Amino acid sequence: MTREQLDLNIPKTDLPRVVIAGGGFGGINLARKLVKNRFQVVMLDRYNYHTFQPLLYQVATAGLEPDSVAGPLRKVLQNNDRFHFRMLKLLEVDPEKQLVKTVAGNLHFDYLVIATGAKINYFNIESIEQNAFPLKQITHALDLRSHLFQQFEEALITRDPQKQKEMMSVTVVGAGPTGVELCGALAELRNHVLQKDYPTLDLQQMDITLIEGVDRVLPGMSEKTSEKTRTYLENMGVTIRLKRMTKGYDGETVTLDTGEQIRAGTLIWAAGVQGNLVKGFSENSIHKGQYLVNRMNQVIKKKEEEIHYQHIFALGDVAWMEQEGYPAGLPGVAQVAIQQGKHLGKNLSFIAREKGPVPFTYKNKGVLATVGRNKAVADLPRMRLAGFAGWFVWMLVHLLFLVGFRSKAVVFANWIWNYFTFDRGIRLILRPSSKNKNLISEEITEAMQAG
Amino acid sequence: MTREQLDLNIPKTDLPRVVIAGGGFGGINLARKLVKNRFQVVMLDRYNYHTFQPLLYQVATAGLEPDSVAGPLRKVLQNNDRFHFRMLKLLEVDPEKQLVKTVAGNLHFDYLVIATGAKINYFNIESIEQNAFPLKQITHALDLRSHLFQQFEEALITRDPQKQKEMMSVTVVGAGPTGVELCGALAELRNHVLQKDYPTLDLQQMDITLIEGVDRVLPGMSEKTSEKTRTYLENMGVTIRLKRMTKGYDGETVTLDTGEQIRAGTLIWAAGVQGNLVKGFSENSIHKGQYLVNRMNQVIKKKEEEIHYQHIFALGDVAWMEQEGYPAGLPGVAQVAIQQGKHLGKNLSFIAREKGPVPFTYKNKGVLATVGRNKAVADLPRMRLAGFAGWFVWMLVHLLFLVGFRSKAVVFANWIWNYFTFDRGIRLILRPSSKNKNLISEEITEAMQAG
Repeated sequence: MTREQLDLNIPKTDLPRVVIAGGGFGGINLARKLVKNRFQVVMLDRYNYHTFQPLLYQVATAGLEPDSVAGPLRKVLQNNDRFHFRMLKLLEVDPEKQLVKTVAGNLHFDYLVIATGAKINYFNIESIEQNAFPLKQITHALDLRSHLFQQFEEALITRDPQKQKEMMSVTVVGAGPTGVELCGALAELRNHVLQKDYPTLDLQQMDITLIEGVDRVLPGMSEKTSEKTRTYLENMGVTIRLKRMTKGYDGETVTLDTGEQIRAGTLIWAAGVQGNLVKGFSENSIHKGQYLVNRMNQVIKKKEEEIHYQHIFALGDVAWMEQEGYPAGLPGVAQVAIQQGKHLGKNLSFIAREKGPVPFTYKNKGVLATVGRNKAVADLPRMRLAGFAGWFVWMLVHLLFLVGFRSKAVVFANWIWNYFTFDRGIRLILRPSSKNKNLISEEITEAMQAG
Repeated sequence: MTREQLDLNIPKTDLPRVVIAGGGFGGINLARKLVKNRFQVVMLDRYNYHTFQPLLYQVATAGLEPDSVAGPLRKVLQNNDRFHFRMLKLLEVDPEKQLVKTVAGNLHFDYLVIATGAKINYFNIESIEQNAFPLKQITHALDLRSHLFQQFEEALITRDPQKQKEMMSVTVVGAGPTGVELCGALAELRNHVLQKDYPTLDLQQMDITLIEGVDRVLPGMSEKTSEKTRTYLENMGVTIRLKRMTKGYDGETVTLDTGEQIRAGTLIWAAGVQGNLVKGFSENSIHKGQYLVNRMNQVIKKKEEEIHYQHIFALGDVAWMEQEGYPAGLPGVAQVAIQQGKHLGKNLSFIAREKGPVPFTYKNKGVLATVGRNKAVADLPRMRLAGFAGWFVWMLVHLLFLVGFRSKAVVFANWIWNYFTFDRGIRLILRPSSKNKNLISEEITEAMQAG
């Protein structure tokens, strides 16, 4: 096989080639820096769009269209002939030959940046992996939205009140920002939208339960903020169960380590993620399911001798970087990926000009979570916010980081609409829910397959 | 089985119960009339949303979000306790016992209105049914959008120039409004959007071919309008082949009755529809795949004796009604369904008060079709429009008939955006294309199934 056949139709140039695997926050911020300098940038992603994960929960609860929280990756770096996007998943890396392998062929790199993010960690609990809903991708959000509304459609034609209650009830595992924001959005859906849509159902029967392993919600934030958030959620009618591990879910009953059982037609798993690793690295490079990197984001090659790959980097959720004050590694938040992406962009320019790279330092700009309208919490470097102020800051920050003017405008318009109408306009049941093997979904499946 | 178990949890009242099968233009316009009078209205639909079919082609070509052309059916008639929606497909009717049958049980009706619309007619050509894309439902539009963009992603990593050309090329069968509007939108996509997204592909290689059986495009409109439309399309680079029947498509090659073959990775079938009939009626009630109805929309029971069901009606695309000037039945357009729905609403009130129903007369308010920006044609009762004027009228009319203020606002905003930016913002590849069994879609499928 000649090199000619190996290059995914990417032109050969004299510029050093940086292959970026993943178009998340880290990947696009890095690419934007790199194309300003003398690099050929090749981005690989299995999707053709960037997903703004912090707002997926609003897609799942019918507040936003999927298209508004996703940006076509080709558009992010349009009109730059040094940028090449290929919709391909990175299957394997050959670090020594400097090759990435995809189903469509191999590609040589001068520098490789693994920015593949995280995927759901079910901790090997098979029943949960089979029956729970994850929320990491646009398609997950669409599946969850369809499933939730399908459960209500079905509850309406169910005569057994116990079964009806079960169908309506939702349990969320994991009280990090995703779990908390989901519970808040579900409570608002129950209190404002569903009652209007399903006037003959007793919505008080819809339980929303949040389960968390440690002793408070939002364990990554300050204790005062946790307390405030807990109050918000409880006032909205969310049942919170702390210090409990979820052991199994058969599609109807959630079982906790205490032996308690919760009946719920929907279980949403927001309890853990793990790095989206690719093949080709030895265990030496991996620490707790992430690539162990130094402060230059270089992946470690041999732990004992502290030898790092000079041309292979990892950043964001797939990388484990230690820093003073963060003994458990940097947190898995967008800000880490964004800052590392920008920093690595500068470092690669230094390295290409044979200057030494500069160590990265994460600056915590604050952590935010929203529970509902006028109710959000923010731990900023110099202050804590809650209520309307927190909510306002939360909105501003999320609009700021949304990719593309179009998405910003669409999301902003939707928020205005949702705020003043108390409505959620986007409650289509579009996809057959794979978790829902009942009569209605068979109907839909059939209908989708038929003309 | 007692009646108690038969009623889909619909409360029993003293009001006469009208069951409407289908939430299309006919069904919702009828329901809106009926709830103002003393009826209990039960609407059944296999989807929980109304689809604004005239704009599906814009969803398929990335100009509009799916959510903006669909309205949740529960919201259309919210806050009315005499209206009941059930997301169920009507499986069968027992006209004598006045029962409708669904997978979740049966329901008694006093009046039944079949408003199930049309489905694609492949004229028993199996290869086309298997490999062509239909465009009748939101899910079809999403599938087509994903497939189109997936073809370009794949063309980018294909080395065979012939194969590359084939992947990019699209053939549309049927030059009615859907076919014409699709070709126009595809040409605009090619000329404005795809070239920016895929600068290394030679977009001149992308063939857009429109095939029509009769001797002109838009055969339902005036000859002058056909001529104008043909000029528009040809100037935009669409190849038009008239007086040709499409005989088969194996996923790569379209075969015509003349023996000609066209290579195209995508075939869109806009060549015919048939009524969405339900079981329970004899051949006596059916004429050319539709329910034969009298001018009161009553379904015929015995043709010879001209006996009609007094309590069973059909309207819109599933009904065959003759009227002076329309020897081939009324056309399959939204206006017929809307007018019949409103008219039947009045007639049912007359019938319930034991007054005689009034015959329906279709008023042709005009036919419109758009080819592209500033290019649309309109045959109005007193004049013909083309160019910017036609396009402006087309936009106004479509906004007017979109269901719900929210959809109107979103669609309008998108059109403004698309018009001034020449962009199509919504080009996500969201669903695995079932027609596309190649490497990339397997990748996506796997990715969607994995975490």
